[in-house]
Amino acid sequence: MSFHIAIDIGGTQLRAACYSSDKLSPTTLRRIFTKDPQSTPLERLINLIQSVWPENQTVSAIGLAAPGPVDIKRGVILKAPNIPGWENLPLCQLLEERFNTPAVIGNDANMAALGEWKYGAGRGHHDMLYMTISTGIGGGIIVDDRLLLGASGLAAEIGHVTIIPDGPLCGCGQRGHLEAIAAGPAIARWVEDRLSSGTASSLLNDQPVTAKAVSQAAKQGDELARQALETAGNFIGLAMTNFVHIFNPTAIVIGGGVSLSGGLILEPISKSLKKYVMNPQYLDNLVIYSAAFGDEAGLLGALTLARNFRPE
Amino acid sequence: MSFHIAIDIGGTQLRAACYSSDKLSPTTLRRIFTKDPQSTPLERLINLIQSVWPENQTVSAIGLAAPGPVDIKRGVILKAPNIPGWENLPLCQLLEERFNTPAVIGNDANMAALGEWKYGAGRGHHDMLYMTISTGIGGGIIVDDRLLLGASGLAAEIGHVTIIPDGPLCGCGQRGHLEAIAAGPAIARWVEDRLSSGTASSLLNDQPVTAKAVSQAAKQGDELARQALETAGNFIGLAMTNFVHIFNPTAIVIGGGVSLSGGLILEPISKSLKKYVMNPQYLDNLVIYSAAFGDEAGLLGALTLARNFRPE
Repeated sequence: MSFHIAIDIGGTQLRAACYSSDKLSPTTLRRIFTKDPQSTPLERLINLIQSVWPENQTVSAIGLAAPGPVDIKRGVILKAPNIPGWENLPLCQLLEERFNTPAVIGNDANMAALGEWKYGAGRGHHDMLYMTISTGIGGGIIVDDRLLLGASGLAAEIGHVTIIPDGPLCGCGQRGHLEAIAAGPAIARWVEDRLSSGTASSLLNDQPVTAKAVSQAAKQGDELARQALETAGNFIGLAMTNFVHIFNPTAIVIGGGVSLSGGLILEPISKSLKKYVMNPQYLDNLVIYSAAFGDEAGLLGALTLARNFRPE
Repeated sequence: MSFHIAIDIGGTQLRAACYSSDKLSPTTLRRIFTKDPQSTPLERLINLIQSVWPENQTVSAIGLAAPGPVDIKRGVILKAPNIPGWENLPLCQLLEERFNTPAVIGNDANMAALGEWKYGAGRGHHDMLYMTISTGIGGGIIVDDRLLLGASGLAAEIGHVTIIPDGPLCGCGQRGHLEAIAAGPAIARWVEDRLSSGTASSLLNDQPVTAKAVSQAAKQGDELARQALETAGNFIGLAMTNFVHIFNPTAIVIGGGVSLSGGLILEPISKSLKKYVMNPQYLDNLVIYSAAFGDEAGLLGALTLARNFRPE
């Protein structure tokens, strides 16, 4: 029996799971807080890996999903948002030395794409686009059965494409990016702007507004909330259309908190795609799915990475 | 000695060349008009191939660059603009039966990208973006040493991405696409609009304005012409930035008539890329080149396709 360990590194929690053979349910899964006054995040991560290690067994590879940009070739975390000190951290090398087993790393949105493609909603598709919409918009792209990484592993930043030149400020410092227009905070801000100019809504007594509250209000029939999701969905669909013209995929998988609004966001996306596509042929074999996994997509992507690891 | 034949199919002319072994200069190159009252384009193509066929030799494969969308898997031209009757034409099968040798096909912008990557400005790069700017804007993308095709071969329509929502009408029927804002006709229209509102320019007596005339006037110091290229370059750079965030390439190769304006268009593109990129790391290893080949890029891409052909 072979074992692989998958790790999902977040600013809030660290998760580790051990999987045997080709199973999808872990033999062991543990999660702990990333930060603690008693120990550093790296010490905590090492102890966590130790705690899911199969007794008296070897582990073929450790796969890691990390937040922020990573140098996948050298196995270095370039900068992990929300983990102080994790800059240019040669994490794979440190773990390889400590555990004497190969360690491979990818960024968390890419790993979620890989997980959805290998085991989830995108299974069986050769060309797939994965988009996660929550506080930010990220994603991953499968081209001809391979994850699109780019020369330095910085590819697939699909939330950082300009939709409205000189539009709203994005977290990255640029303007008018999809993330600045259609991620959770932008949806909440859109509603707040209209509330402050007097539009009626059940959300009026619920300020500051959150994307989650907008989603709940929309489900209960609130018109302003419904319009907010429709507006975001329209822009997401416009961006999707560009990606469809560029990648000609057969599946689009949508995950992240905002996607939990279901049809209230997916229908506007789909409608917008139909409206903006240049040639209906692009839609002939294209399906749009909700992600099969929630939080665990990244873990399953890291597992895929570990299972695909071949020594050079 | 092995031989390959490469074909470039255009609405105006058909070109065919025969290449020996791994040579880049053809042993024979012929071009004829696509249309003629005496014979159909297909008959003309077959005669043309016959005329470059090496005497008493076998040809390992025929590679074709075709305008418009093609079904690369089945070898079918879906619709060739400007060649009446060429709809759903199973060209590869027809040629294979006629010449008893394998025939492989790709669309012309993709083939030009392949030619520039294999033999031209993009040589040695694993991740490359090729954009051709002339009457339209097209391109091709190399991802990890492979041409991005998409599920039905419709990928890499990089001129058909929305830059200005609800912007100028594009030839494809949609609005605000890069092609509608920054291709040759858009550059000419931008100048004409300003001429008609009284802006001074050497182009005033040169109407209707063409992109070529704008380029020449800009080279001679005409301020309005220079601004026109700067405006187009800024939008092209904005689109490029999106592609850089998505593909993280190490080379961008720019071809087509408009690129012959040299620095007058390439510098605004480069400046815009620096302005809009979300993280300077994307530019660390990125170079922007003018295309090495003009018209012959498509032929060299078709040659690459033919040389890479392996029977299944």
